Amino acid sequence: MDHTVKAFDEDITHIRGLIAEMGGLAELAISEALSALVTGDEELAKQVIERDKKLDTLEAEVDAMAVRVLALRAPMADDLREIVAALKISGVVERIGDYAKNIAKRIDRIEGRSTFEPLTLLPAMGELAAEMVHDVLTAFAARDPIMAREVIERDEKVDAFYDSIFRNVVSHMVENPKTISSAAQLLFVARNIERIGDHATNVAEMVHYSATGDYPKDIER
Amino acid sequence: MDHTVKAFDEDITHIRGLIAEMGGLAELAISEALSALVTGDEELAKQVIERDKKLDTLEAEVDAMAVRVLALRAPMADDLREIVAALKISGVVERIGDYAKNIAKRIDRIEGRSTFEPLTLLPAMGELAAEMVHDVLTAFAARDPIMAREVIERDEKVDAFYDSIFRNVVSHMVENPKTISSAAQLLFVARNIERIGDHATNVAEMVHYSATGDYPKDIER
Repeated sequence: MDHTVKAFDEDITHIRGLIAEMGGLAELAISEALSALVTGDEELAKQVIERDKKLDTLEAEVDAMAVRVLALRAPMADDLREIVAALKISGVVERIGDYAKNIAKRIDRIEGRSTFEPLTLLPAMGELAAEMVHDVLTAFAARDPIMAREVIERDEKVDAFYDSIFRNVVSHMVENPKTISSAAQLLFVARNIERIGDHATNVAEMVHYSATGDYPKDIER
Repeated sequence: MDHTVKAFDEDITHIRGLIAEMGGLAELAISEALSALVTGDEELAKQVIERDKKLDTLEAEVDAMAVRVLALRAPMADDLREIVAALKISGVVERIGDYAKNIAKRIDRIEGRSTFEPLTLLPAMGELAAEMVHDVLTAFAARDPIMAREVIERDEKVDAFYDSIFRNVVSHMVENPKTISSAAQLLFVARNIERIGDHATNVAEMVHYSATGDYPKDIER
């Protein structure tokens, strides 16, 4: 019995490590994609796009490991919920990486970046979202539902940021019709960051579920 | 043993039924959201938004049922992979519903809808994406990796549609700067549909995994 418990603990520690690695890569992708966007650094953008494959591989590794643990250890109760949460969370973190990759792919569709005031607002918004990703994975590692809730509440700030940037970009478009195509890219970037916040919120709900057995009820999904 | 096998079959049939129900709701949400968008039917849009809660509930039901099956039946090999796929697929279908809900929420932000040519292109794009959702869940129910691959290949058409609508909307913006704010909503709608296609592709990859034990390798995720 002790042997099985120890083996399970090792497995779950391994899975947590893989998810932490995914989270670190996703955070890095967000910040580097936005940095490349602002500076127009196409080389950095390429790196972000290339590195995204690692997230796909890690997701597949988490899934394979989770299936192995389920098959070999038949975990129960809290342990089972944690494996289920890991399976779902790996999928969402992979999606978060996709959003960052998508931002990186837009770098070369933006012209005259020095005249775009909204461009300067995006990194701060991205930082907020990247912090949510960081903190929600810390909450997962610590099985901390209170921290998870706190991440969910922070999503409002990202949404407010998004609304403000949306208005700013639309005004810019109205005043500079020639830049509309480039400015539309910024709308999508802001939207991608907003979705990253949503996905971090989604993970926070799963962490809450994993830690308590319930989804947080009173927060709109 | 026979008893256990039969009980497992009943459980997996139940889970498949729940996922089929989720898929049906997601398809309906896509087509009704686009119909409401084109006609400006706010009542229908409200229904789409309200009905989305049902998808959240069904996802939680799939998760609870999957956890129960894992705990009670300790399935192996193919059966285990199918439960794992169900857990991941329920999360993605819930997300697809969110995109449809998001489209429905934009209805009242569009002014002068009768003059928007791009508006008339969106339902056809939505239909393509809704068909992908339908077919990928049929592939899941039938454990059919070939059908899953076929869905993955169809995503290119949705992407091409998106590119064409993007250009169309941007031209419209350039020619009619006063409509930029409304037209930006259409860009997001097109983007949401494009993401629905991506998510259907994501599900198709999981169906492939569930049916064969491998993710399809040669298709970019």
